[in-house]
Amino acid sequence: MKVDISVFDTTLRDGTQGEGISLSAEDKVKIALKLDQLGVHYIEGGNPGSNSKDIEFFRRMRDMKLNAKITAFGSTRRKNSQADQDTSLVRIVESGVRAATLVGKSWDFHVTTALQTTLEENLAMIYDSFAFLKRRGLEAIYDAEHFFDGYKHNPEYALACLRKAAEAGADWIVLCDTNGGTLPNEIYEIVSRVAKEVDKPIGIHTHNDCELAVANTLAAVQAGARQVQGTINGYGERCGNANLCSIIPNLQLKMGLRCISDEQLAQLTSVARYVSEIANAVMPVGQPYVGNAAFAHKGGIHVSAILKDPKTYEHIQPELVGNQRRILVSELAGQSNIIHKAQEMGLDISSGNERARAVIEKIKILEHEGYSFEGADASLELLLRDAFGEQTQIFKLESFKMLVEKSDGRMVSEAIVKINVGGDIVYTAAEGNGPVNALDNALRKALVQYYPEIMNIALTDYKVRVLDEKDATAAKVRVLIETTDFKNTWSTVGVSDNVIEASWEALVDSFRYALMNCKKTPAAQEDKREQLGIVNH
Amino acid sequence: MKVDISVFDTTLRDGTQGEGISLSAEDKVKIALKLDQLGVHYIEGGNPGSNSKDIEFFRRMRDMKLNAKITAFGSTRRKNSQADQDTSLVRIVESGVRAATLVGKSWDFHVTTALQTTLEENLAMIYDSFAFLKRRGLEAIYDAEHFFDGYKHNPEYALACLRKAAEAGADWIVLCDTNGGTLPNEIYEIVSRVAKEVDKPIGIHTHNDCELAVANTLAAVQAGARQVQGTINGYGERCGNANLCSIIPNLQLKMGLRCISDEQLAQLTSVARYVSEIANAVMPVGQPYVGNAAFAHKGGIHVSAILKDPKTYEHIQPELVGNQRRILVSELAGQSNIIHKAQEMGLDISSGNERARAVIEKIKILEHEGYSFEGADASLELLLRDAFGEQTQIFKLESFKMLVEKSDGRMVSEAIVKINVGGDIVYTAAEGNGPVNALDNALRKALVQYYPEIMNIALTDYKVRVLDEKDATAAKVRVLIETTDFKNTWSTVGVSDNVIEASWEALVDSFRYALMNCKKTPAAQEDKREQLGIVNH
Repeated sequence: MKVDISVFDTTLRDGTQGEGISLSAEDKVKIALKLDQLGVHYIEGGNPGSNSKDIEFFRRMRDMKLNAKITAFGSTRRKNSQADQDTSLVRIVESGVRAATLVGKSWDFHVTTALQTTLEENLAMIYDSFAFLKRRGLEAIYDAEHFFDGYKHNPEYALACLRKAAEAGADWIVLCDTNGGTLPNEIYEIVSRVAKEVDKPIGIHTHNDCELAVANTLAAVQAGARQVQGTINGYGERCGNANLCSIIPNLQLKMGLRCISDEQLAQLTSVARYVSEIANAVMPVGQPYVGNAAFAHKGGIHVSAILKDPKTYEHIQPELVGNQRRILVSELAGQSNIIHKAQEMGLDISSGNERARAVIEKIKILEHEGYSFEGADASLELLLRDAFGEQTQIFKLESFKMLVEKSDGRMVSEAIVKINVGGDIVYTAAEGNGPVNALDNALRKALVQYYPEIMNIALTDYKVRVLDEKDATAAKVRVLIETTDFKNTWSTVGVSDNVIEASWEALVDSFRYALMNCKKTPAAQEDKREQLGIVNH
Repeated sequence: MKVDISVFDTTLRDGTQGEGISLSAEDKVKIALKLDQLGVHYIEGGNPGSNSKDIEFFRRMRDMKLNAKITAFGSTRRKNSQADQDTSLVRIVESGVRAATLVGKSWDFHVTTALQTTLEENLAMIYDSFAFLKRRGLEAIYDAEHFFDGYKHNPEYALACLRKAAEAGADWIVLCDTNGGTLPNEIYEIVSRVAKEVDKPIGIHTHNDCELAVANTLAAVQAGARQVQGTINGYGERCGNANLCSIIPNLQLKMGLRCISDEQLAQLTSVARYVSEIANAVMPVGQPYVGNAAFAHKGGIHVSAILKDPKTYEHIQPELVGNQRRILVSELAGQSNIIHKAQEMGLDISSGNERARAVIEKIKILEHEGYSFEGADASLELLLRDAFGEQTQIFKLESFKMLVEKSDGRMVSEAIVKINVGGDIVYTAAEGNGPVNALDNALRKALVQYYPEIMNIALTDYKVRVLDEKDATAAKVRVLIETTDFKNTWSTVGVSDNVIEASWEALVDSFRYALMNCKKTPAAQEDKREQLGIVNH
């Protein structure tokens, strides 16, 4: 596939500068794998010179086979020093990446004010640093910080910085609107000039401080840029970086410039939502292309026109970016993900099927109540199996009680559960590190005598999201739990205005899913049960 | 004051098509008064032909003295009918406004598909409707629906629609990118053509489906448009309308085009936040110009440069739009962020200061344990005040107990707290919707007798983040709480492996911060305390 525009993702580096965005090394690995599926060409993983979390990320990525290039980020060497003795540059080489980005000054005011050195020394810093990376065999990308502000202030010096990087062998010259204050027509004019003056492929890196980051990126491409830098959902410092979830479809669907395959573009919505889940950042309902309301129709006239012909009120077909049309009034929204899941499971979900209609109706009601099955495949599967008459209810809750106490600075969490396992009433209690862990322990303790397999699973992730923030502590919460049996991993969901109840729901689904194909041990062994301190009611 | 660009606000009409945005007549009046203070020139109040809430709004606005013109919205007359017998048009006149906007088709495909009439009849509908409004003495604005799509499909017909409105006396010709699918360069080209062909002032109305609504508005102005239509915070159907909170400062500060006075521009942030409160819509933290993070700085290098000279990393002075600079504290920053915060508070944080060194050490340890102060300004301030010997501990926890029970499908949450308020032991209990709400209620109940101000604050956001996912339900969690007293908003943090304890911590910090400057009521009034069911231990 011929690519017109190269996509450089910096969600894992510049995106983590966004307020409230904090990613563990494990989160970063997950997101990198997803970005590779989406087909971006560069994945900037972090700054190996600045923290050990990023070093860990690069170590874990080293043996993975990706199509995308993993890149490391750093700065040009310190003033008045040697590139090959610069810790930041050495760490980049040690991280094992094949490509690296170095940010360097191109605004004379910054050189003298922020860096406090001479204009000549800054040019030497650029030259030495890129020469060093090229000697070590890396693809090298120059992020010319504040290029547009610099150009407006002193065009000749700004261009001299670019030429210095090119001379040292930099493979890409990326022009950064670091403060996000430049307008599209200025971007167009300046990039056009650079394209004439510098004989290297040009990239563009913009920020959204004027709500113009996407437009500025497109203007740069129209002026000759061939690499776009940005983040998923526009995460980034202050008002964010340029949003790749808008840039990619604009380039590909509106401007006819190929970035990724059509199949990859159709994953855009799910990737955007996945990253927002991992980053635990609520996605704006009206986010262009990928938001839940991006193709939602409310007004009566719009709706009847949409039913006559979708292109009356839609600028593209939502399926092209993996999103879907929603009709808010009549709730006619397509349920293609559910249909797809059911077909995968071999269930007859055709519209003539009574059970199919009933379960789709039930899912709609649950989604209206705040359930989300996009991140909870296992809960969706249980719902479908139940609807088609399979027996997945391996036990029934009679009651639970939860006690959390703080006294003399000591916290105690205790859970008491009473469940019915195929006629046997089991009544037991356990402590835990916090209430949800206590519930988890108590439930395992109650089930282990019937299902010893329960000890082979482990919860790997627990997420809480407040659904209606305005109600704060009285609001509904959605809990997502991820579980593994060390072969497979599955996710379940619970919703309630009580975080304990929502956690219980997700926990129960997770255990039901794990035990779905296990047989109940017919006679519980008395010795083992005594050993575990389990007493029947 | 000479105005270059006229600002037309449609928050109260098109804005209410946004998902989750619903305004009462009272809400609309409040917002209209605020918009008038901001200095917008037109306030579109609603559609008097479509619902009684809007009729009520226009009735209430009739006697108010505003600088802005209140405008009503409707459609061109129905096909094959008379304008003076068209209910929608008659209602507009009855509403008593001096100016009105009529939407009419300009895309031939829409005329035949959605309207299902002839191209000639549509032209007659436009002519008759505007002639009617002008006979009744109103200023008349033509919103040419889908103009850009129409122009691309059949430019001559699209232009004929505009000419017909102009011929009938329309005062403004507003070009609408109704589906939001047009690019800035197309907008520029098409508006330039219209400006040559139509001898009336031109307006622009865009939607944000490609994340280009602001850029498209600016491109239209550069091509000759003299009215910009949009909404506060970009509220509107699907991905929203063009955001006036970005357009106005871009026009005025970047393009040198006068819209409102400098004093009015300095109210922009407070107007944006006020409207978001009334509309009950959470404002994105990174919203350009007016968001809480729009001028927030996190990275260590950025922060040290900002302290040297703000324009190194700020595209405008935040005060120009009534916003302010914030220095975030985080793992990515050196100590300069904390130093700046302390300086803001007037504390001596110089490196020679023993207390300064101790508190920086303490913050490092807390961050290592999972605290994050970048989203918790108030907790950081309390920490600094404590370190410098201020007394912010208004009460001390003796113990709390939390009971959550599910039985017969019913959930009950109860909290029992025992606190020490300056020597008095208060012991009380409360129920709630979930455990955290119960804690919140119990703590308020215990404090209200000493600090009646506690009833004037409300929690507005509650976030839970699991810190080490590998441990799942036994992992540490970080709780962030946002609180408001309806003038200021502050955020606090708590960390524990127990979600209840973490919530308690954040809650206590929030209450401490709120009451920091309040005096304890010396003698609690027995009658009031009995009335509240508070019994001392």
